[in-house]
This record gives sequence, C-alpha cells and structure tokens, in this order.
Amino acid sequence: MKKFVYYAPTEIVFGCGCISEVAEIAKRYGTKALLVTGNMGSSQAPTFQKVKKLLNDSGINVAHFDGVIPNPTTDVVTAGADMAKEFKAEIVIGVGGGSAMDTAKAIAVEATHPGSAWDYNCHTDGPTEATLPIIEISTTAGTGSQLTQCAVITKTSDKDKSAIWHKNIFPKVAIVDPEVTASMPKTVTAHTGFDAFCHNFEAYLSVNTSPIVETLALDAIRTIAEYLPKALEDGGDMEARSKMAYADSLGGYTNSNAGVTLPHGLGMQVGGHCPHVTHGQALAAIYPEFTRFTWKSTVEKFAAVGRIFNQDLEKETDEIAAEKCCEEIDHFLKKIDMWIGFKDLNVTMEDIREIADCGQVLGDYLNNPRVATIDEMYELLTACYERK
Amino acid sequence: MKKFVYYAPTEIVFGCGCISEVAEIAKRYGTKALLVTGNMGSSQAPTFQKVKKLLNDSGINVAHFDGVIPNPTTDVVTAGADMAKEFKAEIVIGVGGGSAMDTAKAIAVEATHPGSAWDYNCHTDGPTEATLPIIEISTTAGTGSQLTQCAVITKTSDKDKSAIWHKNIFPKVAIVDPEVTASMPKTVTAHTGFDAFCHNFEAYLSVNTSPIVETLALDAIRTIAEYLPKALEDGGDMEARSKMAYADSLGGYTNSNAGVTLPHGLGMQVGGHCPHVTHGQALAAIYPEFTRFTWKSTVEKFAAVGRIFNQDLEKETDEIAAEKCCEEIDHFLKKIDMWIGFKDLNVTMEDIREIADCGQVLGDYLNNPRVATIDEMYELLTACYERK
Ligand SMILES: NC(=O)c1ccc[n+]([C@@H]2O[C@H](COP(=O)([O-])OP(=O)(O)OC[C@H]3O[C@@H](n4cnc5c(N)ncnc54)[C@H](O)[C@@H]3O)[C@@H](O)[C@H]2O)c1
Ligand SMILES: NC(=O)c1ccc[n+]([C@@H]2O[C@H](COP(=O)([O-])OP(=O)(O)OC[C@H]3O[C@@H](n4cnc5c(N)ncnc54)[C@H](O)[C@@H]3O)[C@@H](O)[C@H]2O)c1
Ligand SMILES: [Fe+2]
Ligand SMILES: [Fe+2]
Repeated sequence: MKKFVYYAPTEIVFGCGCISEVAEIAKRYGTKALLVTGNMGSSQAPTFQKVKKLLNDSGINVAHFDGVIPNPTTDVVTAGADMAKEFKAEIVIGVGGGSAMDTAKAIAVEATHPGSAWDYNCHTDGPTEATLPIIEISTTAGTGSQLTQCAVITKTSDKDKSAIWHKNIFPKVAIVDPEVTASMPKTVTAHTGFDAFCHNFEAYLSVNTSPIVETLALDAIRTIAEYLPKALEDGGDMEARSKMAYADSLGGYTNSNAGVTLPHGLGMQVGGHCPHVTHGQALAAIYPEFTRFTWKSTVEKFAAVGRIFNQDLEKETDEIAAEKCCEEIDHFLKKIDMWIGFKDLNVTMEDIREIADCGQVLGDYLNNPRVATIDEMYELLTACYERK
Repeated sequence: MKKFVYYAPTEIVFGCGCISEVAEIAKRYGTKALLVTGNMGSSQAPTFQKVKKLLNDSGINVAHFDGVIPNPTTDVVTAGADMAKEFKAEIVIGVGGGSAMDTAKAIAVEATHPGSAWDYNCHTDGPTEATLPIIEISTTAGTGSQLTQCAVITKTSDKDKSAIWHKNIFPKVAIVDPEVTASMPKTVTAHTGFDAFCHNFEAYLSVNTSPIVETLALDAIRTIAEYLPKALEDGGDMEARSKMAYADSLGGYTNSNAGVTLPHGLGMQVGGHCPHVTHGQALAAIYPEFTRFTWKSTVEKFAAVGRIFNQDLEKETDEIAAEKCCEEIDHFLKKIDMWIGFKDLNVTMEDIREIADCGQVLGDYLNNPRVATIDEMYELLTACYERK
C-alpha cells in the first residue's frame, strides 16, 4: 500500500433539525459570536434569524455581519473582520453556502492577524493558531467547505481568485442540517450538487488519494448519482436533501485530504475571469472533455465509477466500462440539466485563451492522473465551447 | 437519514517506513518526550531502540519508560506518570500494542492532573485539555487505540478493568507503519486481527452507527476477511500486514464514533476476571453465540457481511444470507485458528456466572441491536463453554 496522511479534525453534527444545537455547540468556544451570512433580503433570512435567536436565547452575544456576496472578495472579508475586532468576537459562525462559510473562515484569520486575510493565502505560511474558532452551518450541498481547511476569496483590486489552505482554518464544528438546504432553488441545487460530485470524483482520481478517501468518495458518488436527480425532481424530498448533504460532507473530507484535479484547477480560473459563471457551471462545461482526456490514464477507477452509474457495465471489461463512464457522466449532466458549453455561459474564445494561460497557476492540475500542458488545456477548453 | 455526530481528530500517518517521521512529528509538540513501551527484553526492542535514536538524533530529549505490561494497571501508569513529571515531559509517545498505547494515554493524563488516571475514567467528567499531547505508534493491528479516545486500564487493588473515554485523550498523531507489525507472532496476529474485525463489525451493527462508520467498517471487514488469513499464512507478506494495519485503523475510527456492542461488553469482563485470556480470545469464544443471538434483529447488515465472506450469498434472500453469516463467521474463526470455547481458555462455569453478572457494568451491551438481559448473557456465555 502507498503511504498516506489523513487528517479531518472537524466534528460533524448531522441531521434534520440539528441547527437547534448551535448555541450549545458555540458555548464550548465562547460567548461572543460573529454571525456571518448573506444579506437579510435573501430567501435564507429565516434561517439566519433562527440561528441568531437560538444564540441570543442561550445568552450568547451576537454581532451579525450580513455582507457576504457570492464569490466573496477581500473587501467583504475586511468589513467583517473589522466588525469582529470591534465586537471582540470569540467565535465566528458562518451560515450559508461556500461563499458565507469561506468568508467566515477568512474573517477568523483577518480578525486575529496583522494585514489582511489575503496575506495568509496558499502561497504563504498561512495563518497561526490565533485564528478564531470557526463553526460552519452549510445551506448548500456542494462545497464541503464546512469540513475543509480551505477558504476561496477574490482579491478585489486585481480580480485574482485564490484560497487560504491551512490546517488552522479547519472549522471546529460543521453543523449539517439538511432542512436548511431545502430552500435552495433548482439551479443552485444542481450547480452545487455537481460540485459535490466533482470533489469526490477528483479526490478519488487524484494522485494524492488514499484508501480512506477512495472509500468515502465512492460512497459519495453512489449517493449523488442516485439522489441529486431526486432532489431536483422534488426539492422538498428530505431524504434526497439529506443524502446530498451527506455526500457534500464526504466531499469536504475527500477534497481536504486528496485535493481536486484538472477541472477545479481550470474551473477556478473560469471563476476568476468570468465571475458571472457559477463554480458548478464551469465544472459542468469542462467535464465532458476532461473525462475523455483522462480516462485512459486511470482505467480501473473510471470503470468503477462507470459501473456505479450503469450496473450493466459490470459485464464489460474495465477498458470498455471506463470509456463508457465518460458517456455516463455526459448522461448525468443532461439529467441534471447541466449539459452546457462555454458559449451558453457567455465565455468567449478570448476568455478561454486567458483561462488556459492561467491553467497552471494553481497546483490542482498536477493531481490529475494525466497532467496537461498549457496547450492541451487550451485544446480541451476549446472543445468545451459548444455542446450539442 | 438519522442524526449523527462524527469526530475523528487524530491525524494518521500511514505507510511502510513512516516510523522514520516520528521526530519531525514530535517536534510540533515539544522537545522533551516520554517514550512508553514494553520492556527491552521483548522482540520489539529494536523498534523501541530505533524510535529513541530517531528522536535523540533530532535533538529531542527522551526519557524511556519501558514498564508497560499487557492489560496495564494503575500501578504501571503511576510509575510512568512519575517519570513524566520528574522529566517534565512535553509529549508522550507510546510504541506498542493497545497496552502500550493505552498506558501512554493514561500517563499523559496522570502527569497533568491531581490524583491518578483512574480518577478520570468513563464514570467521571474525564481529563482536561491539560493532558499532554500524545503520539502513538501501533505495533499490533487490532485495537485501533492509535486513533481512539479510549485507554483501557485495570485498577491494581481491585482488579477492576475500566477505561478513560474522553476527547482530550485522542492522540494528536497516529503513526501506522506496517513494517513494525511484521514481528508479531502468529497468535498475536490472530488475536489482535480478530479484535479489529470485531470493532468494525460491532460499530457497523451498533445502534449508534452512522453512514460514515458503516462505509468505513464495511471496507475494513472486506479487508480483514481477505488479508488476515494471508498475514497468518506469511507474516512477512507486507501487503497483508499493510491491509491489516489499515483495517485496524478504520476500527479506531469506527469504534470511537459508534462504539462496540455486546461481545466487547462481555469480553471486557472476561479480561477483568480471567486476565490470562487475551482480549481477542474472549471475543472469539463469544462470537458464535453472539451472532445467533443478534442476527434476526438486524437482518440487512448480517446479510451484507455474509455476502462479503461468501459472494454466493448475493443470490440468496437477506434472511438466508443473514442466517448464513453466522456460519461464515464460524468458518472464519476456524480459518484463523480461533475456534475456541471458554473451556479451552480455562474459564470455569463459576467465572461465567460472575462475568454474566457484571455484563451490564459497561454500556456497550446497550449498543447491540438486541439488548440482552443478565439471564440471556448467562445463557449465551454458557453456550460458549465448549466448541466442537
Ligand atoms: N472552501 C472550500 O472548500 C470550497 C470548495 C468549493 C468551492 N468553494 C467556493 O464556494 C463558493 C461557492 O459556494 P456555493 O456553491 O455554496 O454557493 P454560494 O455560497 O455562493 O451560494 C450560491 C447562491 O445560493 C444562495 N443560497 C445558498 N444557500 C441557499 C439556500 N439554502 N436557500 C436559498 N438560497 C441559498 C446564496 O445566497 C447565493 O446567492 C465559491 O466562492 C467557491 O469558489 C469553496
Ligand atoms: N484503547 C482502545 O481503543 C482499545 C481497544 C481495544 C483494546 N484495548 C486494550 O488494548 C490491550 C490489548 O492490546 P493488544 O491486543 O494490542 O495487545 P498488547 O499490547 O497487550 O500486546 C500483546 C503482546 O504482543 C506483544 N507485541 C505487540 N506488538 C508486537 C510486535 N510488533 N512484535 C512482537 N510482539 C508484539 C506485546 O509485547 C504483548 O506481549 C488490552 O488492554 C485491551 O483492553 C484498547
Ligand atoms: Fe468545487
Ligand atoms: Fe477490542
């Protein structure tokens, strides 16, 4: 067996209604909490309100920073960190999708370190143990951020999207309550659900994978293949919502331990250059060409995933099952209404050139079983322009 | 989905040769280490020596407590804790099977708390965060203790076996190097390997199980079914040793999150009353009757495990596969040369009466899908007296 390291220190509290435990959990870490959420005009306002009330009723003082925006920026983080400092927050509690949860993490860093959170990103030594304790409540089922040491932020001044990636920002506790995901509209469900698929699939393929990651990732892939379509069919299907929240959480464990690969490396650049494209959309546009680019370099694994999507592939050789896996993933994208090309997303050929040129800025592409050159990235992305 | 909590904060560093990373890892926590091992007369002495040298060569000061005995007692713990205090140890590093690893944990508690480690056992509030950081190097593949919040100790004065069970004794890092398990004699390999099976099987069945535990436990059961016989056939088969070390580690994660059930509840009492019986032997004696007592209360799970041992059961109904699972486990016990009754272990009928009477002292039995009365325990244990 290959050597591996596995580290997943965040406690997960999972289940319908478990959001009601927030105050009891928060009290372990202090009595002054900064609550970090999107704005109170959103459909999630009742959830934010509920968390605030639960905390207040238990004698926890709350300052509410409701300035989170999708793809959060350094400016937003600084505003939140200023609030945390003034309030002397002892805990930061993020409630929302990846954007709110990542903002909470970055605030926990900036409130306790000189300079800005950006100064502690993955190109640096990272933040220290002074980082405030973080509790995350996930309201999407996609990023797994409630369980990762990762916070994606965009530098306002130069539209550079990067991440803090450090053990000191692992949340202390992830509260995963499927009920609060039920308000997600269909598009958010699909985009974030496909993101969860990608974390698990890429961590499974990653050259840094490990047996624990493989086992958890396959469980997640099996779950998403079955339940994402069900969650889309009926957003109130709590069993489907629960299964997706579970698979999303597994993606947090797998991504934080094995990393993601080429699609995320490119997808992050799509996000940086074309912020109107959601993270899930960027991944969906890239996947059909990514799978064709990669399968021959890891036949057994593609075969295993192919057989999850289509049991009939049990009868076929690994080679055939692996190649067919690419078609199965296409089929899945169609089923969840994400069969899209860059053209549909208003990403131009010029954008594609720039995205390819930045395709090796993040190290993710190196995790792929087949490592792409810049030219190959350009070719791959170009082939993703138009879908029929 | 049911609510669950999952918490596994220990970092695992896994792989052949990874013991050489011990100094680098220890340095994160301090420069004065108490090394806790069995005595230097044992066949493991070269391993202890190697760890000591690696630490010394990196400038870490080492005090070596080599007084660990199987089924460690409070007296042993106190001797180690006195040494830690005098030396002003900043880290405790356990090297060995469950006995050494548990002693290391208990020393980390007693060295930093008033009274003795026993005063912090599972019937109390447990130890505080003052507990010294713990690093564990496992040399058996059975207890999973390198990853658990559990330390089993016996009170010298009244032969009472109990455990500290608290989050503050989760080791910081578990170093799992299959190479150091290769020196295990066949009997230790079998007894500890079956223990690893039991942790995973019981955590899988436990009423406190969760989907993460189920997934990891099934992976472990699959692994043990295949590789424990191989490790017994050829103790130098490093792939088999690696797989067993991996499955043992999964047992740490699953046991610490879902707990174990009836066999461990009774097995601990066997250990307390008849210390000449190893933990694995006690479990082996109990299992054939335990499976018959339990399968009807959790048919699907027994069926799933039955099908791991015997693929032909795929064709059968769950009911049949579940019942046959009991026979498959019998068969496995025979294969690993652990088809034993209490008579073979010199456990008398009087012992059995006493063991049954104490069968509800620990809460484990409550985790079983079918909860046994004291009378049922007596009946079950009696039926384990003689094996044909
Ligand atoms: N930290 C990590 O590990 C990690 C991993 C992947 C992606 N990310 C980052 O996370 C961000 C994306 O997060 P996301 O995909 O969760 O989207 P998001 O947080 O940006 O949310 C998308 C939209 O859905 C809304 N929304 C969220 N939950 C809702 C609910 N329950 N009901 C109704 N509306 C809801 C939000 O208000 C927002 O408008 C990106 O910045 C991405 O780069 C982080
Ligand atoms: N903390 C937990 O989570 C947990 C779980 C299960 C059991 N336990 C406890 O652990 C103890 C049993 O631990 P164990 O089963 O690992 O046995 P052990 O540590 O008592 O070791 C058994 C024997 O094997 C020897 N040995 C160990 N490794 C060896 C190697 N690599 N080569 C040669 N000899 C070796 C030991 O010196 C000893 O003589 C019991 O006290 C049991 O109650 C603890
Ligand atoms: Fe993602
Ligand atoms: Fe055990």
